Amino acid sequence: MQKLLLKNIKQLIQVRETGLEVIKGKSMRELPLIENAWLAIEDGRIADYGGMDDFPGISDWKGLEVIDCSGRIVMPCYADSHTHIVYAGNRELEFVDRINGLSYEAIAQRGGGILNSSALLRQTSEQELLEQSRVRLKEIQSLGTGAVEIKSGYGLDLDSELKILRVINALKEESGMPVKATFLGAHALPKEYKTDKAGYIRLVTDTMLPAISAEGLADYIDVFCENGYFTAVETRLILEAGQKYGLKGKVHAEQLSHSNGIATAVACGAISVDHLEYCTTEDMALLQQSNTIPTILPGAAFFLNLPLPPARQMIEHDLPVAFASDYNPGSSPCGNMNFMMSLGCIQYKLTPEEMINACTINSAAAMDVLNEVGSITIGKRANIIITKPISSYAYIPYAFGNAPIESVWINGQKNTL
Amino acid sequence: MQKLLLKNIKQLIQVRETGLEVIKGKSMRELPLIENAWLAIEDGRIADYGGMDDFPGISDWKGLEVIDCSGRIVMPCYADSHTHIVYAGNRELEFVDRINGLSYEAIAQRGGGILNSSALLRQTSEQELLEQSRVRLKEIQSLGTGAVEIKSGYGLDLDSELKILRVINALKEESGMPVKATFLGAHALPKEYKTDKAGYIRLVTDTMLPAISAEGLADYIDVFCENGYFTAVETRLILEAGQKYGLKGKVHAEQLSHSNGIATAVACGAISVDHLEYCTTEDMALLQQSNTIPTILPGAAFFLNLPLPPARQMIEHDLPVAFASDYNPGSSPCGNMNFMMSLGCIQYKLTPEEMINACTINSAAAMDVLNEVGSITIGKRANIIITKPISSYAYIPYAFGNAPIESVWINGQKNTL
Repeated sequence: MQKLLLKNIKQLIQVRETGLEVIKGKSMRELPLIENAWLAIEDGRIADYGGMDDFPGISDWKGLEVIDCSGRIVMPCYADSHTHIVYAGNRELEFVDRINGLSYEAIAQRGGGILNSSALLRQTSEQELLEQSRVRLKEIQSLGTGAVEIKSGYGLDLDSELKILRVINALKEESGMPVKATFLGAHALPKEYKTDKAGYIRLVTDTMLPAISAEGLADYIDVFCENGYFTAVETRLILEAGQKYGLKGKVHAEQLSHSNGIATAVACGAISVDHLEYCTTEDMALLQQSNTIPTILPGAAFFLNLPLPPARQMIEHDLPVAFASDYNPGSSPCGNMNFMMSLGCIQYKLTPEEMINACTINSAAAMDVLNEVGSITIGKRANIIITKPISSYAYIPYAFGNAPIESVWINGQKNTL
Repeated sequence: MQKLLLKNIKQLIQVRETGLEVIKGKSMRELPLIENAWLAIEDGRIADYGGMDDFPGISDWKGLEVIDCSGRIVMPCYADSHTHIVYAGNRELEFVDRINGLSYEAIAQRGGGILNSSALLRQTSEQELLEQSRVRLKEIQSLGTGAVEIKSGYGLDLDSELKILRVINALKEESGMPVKATFLGAHALPKEYKTDKAGYIRLVTDTMLPAISAEGLADYIDVFCENGYFTAVETRLILEAGQKYGLKGKVHAEQLSHSNGIATAVACGAISVDHLEYCTTEDMALLQQSNTIPTILPGAAFFLNLPLPPARQMIEHDLPVAFASDYNPGSSPCGNMNFMMSLGCIQYKLTPEEMINACTINSAAAMDVLNEVGSITIGKRANIIITKPISSYAYIPYAFGNAPIESVWINGQKNTL
């Protein structure tokens, strides 16, 4: 039985007794913490914690490993509730096209964008795809991510979508951290259905969904609700089809235009709406009445130079804002959640406390893993970050180009990458 | 005698026969390279290079170490021509103040900003300052920087300025890479001269400069030419005083307002003007007629949410644009030149070729170390980066949150941090 004690922790942050509730509005400015703390881990789970002044001693801890965390901050790992890390090959040449003046939509229209990734993915074997994706999973783990949602959506035919979802499930098995699989067949219209959108939607709802469900490969269903992709009406149809198979919805909403993705998601009881550059105050009012979590993806807005989603106003509307990386080859080739924290503070003017809540407990809620991770809570997994010696947790978003992480622990085991 | 051969290099980039000229205007779009290359290093210097097809063999290389660089790109290290890495303590609490609505200038006015760093630095011993700064130097080296300019300017009294410059010179001795020391006494007005600016300028020119010169501690003299700091007239006076001691000028110019820093710098034959958010077309015309190198510091503009300097227009004006990190605790707590490349491509819409030229050969020129580094040239130091296996050099700025560096070599020795 593993027994691990972290002692003399400068600050143990995001300490919550139950850790099962999202943090909304003004409460996001509060970050519960213990100064000069200890944290006990047993069999990969958080066993207990407290201040060093009240440390009960270690008499009954046989085989105990002790780590001195003097000067260091300990926090729960990030939960990254929106990624597309199972893909084949990168798209830096489109990045250069964009520098030279082409828009993201223009690149998509000439067969680049998602369809470019799709063409590559279809040619890539499941084994090769697993190997490429494993590198990315290990990369984000080493940067502090301790739970991740991964979407399909670069396959766009039955076999290829199944291939991605099988790879996601293989990663779920081997990674040891909570991984959620999302079926995003409605990510784009594949070439072979260019003139038959209804036909492709039927493929998604009547062929792909039953097959995915039969293998139990997905936790969620997602739709890219956007001009040139799927309308709000089509989004609703696809989400409702997913619900029949027990898959809760997630929606790519209001990224490049206002397309009523949020209203549709709320109507369907989706767990999250993501992107939100064009979110309106009416949308915020709808979200207030729902359990749908607004999730901002600052990496994509940064990389594509999009207008910023109204994060501050969402918080003023008492919403529980989450942030995630959107790690993908086209619009956010970055899964570094520390940098998402920096973007949140620098560009969105959220405080470090708000950002830590957005990237741990709220993003864990946006992928329904609050019972497992997202806070320092007895019984949750010991998926934690130990920082280098730093002066305060505000240093993490402040040091924007170089995360001050000393080690990352998954289920109480040190990540050795 | 060290003999090192890198073979099967996917792309050897920034290969220049003499490597002694800055790259201007349209030429910045060109990046000379050799596909499938080899690079020979002897005694810490670049001995030869070529394509694998013409590889002459290794018969006369006794004790040769060979590294297979298949799939990897090899490039010269970055030259970071503008940093303030010799400082004491960080300023993330001001960062939080700024998130909460205070401007950089307002923070300075209430005794924060540079004066905050100055108060801390004065209390810090030379030994402690050296230790803190060494960590930062090693950090940037591990991120690919192979030459660095470092400024004083947090002392603002004779002893403290000497202390910083001695630390810079100690780093110069021990680091093994080209380090240039810049005297920036005119960084801000210290509290004790709050009502006697003329008196402080006399301290800089008549007391500090002779003392610094007597110890041979500085290569350049720099002034923060800005509203609330030093005027163009004062800047000229200080630069000319420096010239009497053989110190070429550098100027912090047009960052927060147009203050005629560029015109002054050009008139004084300064080696570079840095920041340039408010640079005008008239300034660009002046720069065209000079050898002064315009240097953009994208980290500071990003961190402070400033308007972007007109990089593209400068290139259209046939200027040799350089980029540097401005690593400092107040306005750019980041010395990661890979991320500066990403900012240049994402925010300034410079191409990867333009950014690589800006961060290697042109920034090396902006600190006058072109004879030592900045390109793959026979006789230059083997200060090089070997990337991880990547598809093209455009991947480096594209992967904005996680630099794909496998190893960094200084004088042909692998950085082992």
